[in-house]
Amino acid sequence: MFSENLYNPHISVDCVVFGFDGEKLKVLLIERSMNEQNELYNDKKLPGSIILNNEDLDDAASRVLNELTGLKNIYLSQFKSFGSPLRTSNPSDVLWLERTTKMKIGRIVTVAYVALIKIDRKIVFNAEDTSANWYDVNEIANVQLAFDHNRIIKDGLLHIRHRLDLEPHLLFELLPNKFTISQLRSLYDVVHQTRSDVRNFHKKAIQMPYLVMLDELEEGVPHRAARLYKFDKKKK
Amino acid sequence: MFSENLYNPHISVDCVVFGFDGEKLKVLLIERSMNEQNELYNDKKLPGSIILNNEDLDDAASRVLNELTGLKNIYLSQFKSFGSPLRTSNPSDVLWLERTTKMKIGRIVTVAYVALIKIDRKIVFNAEDTSANWYDVNEIANVQLAFDHNRIIKDGLLHIRHRLDLEPHLLFELLPNKFTISQLRSLYDVVHQTRSDVRNFHKKAIQMPYLVMLDELEEGVPHRAARLYKFDKKKK
Repeated sequence: MFSENLYNPHISVDCVVFGFDGEKLKVLLIERSMNEQNELYNDKKLPGSIILNNEDLDDAASRVLNELTGLKNIYLSQFKSFGSPLRTSNPSDVLWLERTTKMKIGRIVTVAYVALIKIDRKIVFNAEDTSANWYDVNEIANVQLAFDHNRIIKDGLLHIRHRLDLEPHLLFELLPNKFTISQLRSLYDVVHQTRSDVRNFHKKAIQMPYLVMLDELEEGVPHRAARLYKFDKKKK
Repeated sequence: MFSENLYNPHISVDCVVFGFDGEKLKVLLIERSMNEQNELYNDKKLPGSIILNNEDLDDAASRVLNELTGLKNIYLSQFKSFGSPLRTSNPSDVLWLERTTKMKIGRIVTVAYVALIKIDRKIVFNAEDTSANWYDVNEIANVQLAFDHNRIIKDGLLHIRHRLDLEPHLLFELLPNKFTISQLRSLYDVVHQTRSDVRNFHKKAIQMPYLVMLDELEEGVPHRAARLYKFDKKKK
């Protein structure tokens, strides 16, 4: 209202998008590159951006995710804001912000969103000057990401674990439409950092009211083909 | 870092503090008064304020609650940020902000916190030029509060309900140290907007592992004195 700028340089949104490749939990990150003192500087960050001046937070999160990855109609759920004054203490982060926004940037509070999506969703991996990719959540924990994005991903995963206690059916957002109990178990274990017993898990799983057994088996697998299941949203 | 001001006029914190008086769920609000066109303008708002430039969000919430109510060592839990550009569309709100902060204020994103406290906690109800008071949550829903504070209170209550599904023992934060099952039921019903059956609730309650029966009865009540109970944190 009083600002001359299109962007509000004090508030950003960041999106933690999780996917599951059948074996590992992945998170969607953006590669950022810039020349710093004649050296190419290269690291990774969450899809995120400063909000527009007349934009609500949820709208900003959807817009940014779409601009950077092509993803549309994703259910993004706000989970936490991060506002340590130290968030912008890394000079590379500030330099990158000021180059991309062409504004003087001080302290930024970011509002973080989380989403669970099927990993086969079509993603534009190479936008104008960014590229998006899936990364193993465990591996990325040991890589220094931009700003406080390591912490945001960690808190996003904790948030998902808590929500799954109340809404276990959310896990199915990460699976393909048809899946095996063994895939469901791998996903469960990867999210909860557990190692479930194969038989016990199977017993528990088939009791879930929203799990529907299909008259189909896996195809083209080297081992004995397993039964396929689907998730019935109406019974959740 | 780049700002000359002590305060960051773009980000605020607001605290939704719930208490229970044995009958009704209450929320702590601040009375705000100002002269507008020679008329005294008077309404209510959540305890909140713009954050300091070098202050983290959690610290800001604790500081503000302490400044406005004297409350210390309250466990404030961040639950949601509110950032609609329309938050500051009421001229009275903007005028009040600019008078109290002595800054030009545009759009403000607020990070909301929630706390459950015992209603007999000592509160400084009259600070320098503010006064704090407990208000019935149901009644206040029909009164126009400052900014989007009606919505923030509503969302804070929803958040508490969800958390109680996972952590039912949080309810005891709102009760006195010694309480009757009937008080526990009133509180449960007021938070969940239910009307529990007296007998069924009693049966369920005495099965809670963290509920400890005391060798004491209520005192000075006109009806038959009921058994007192306490909450055992170690068994939660």
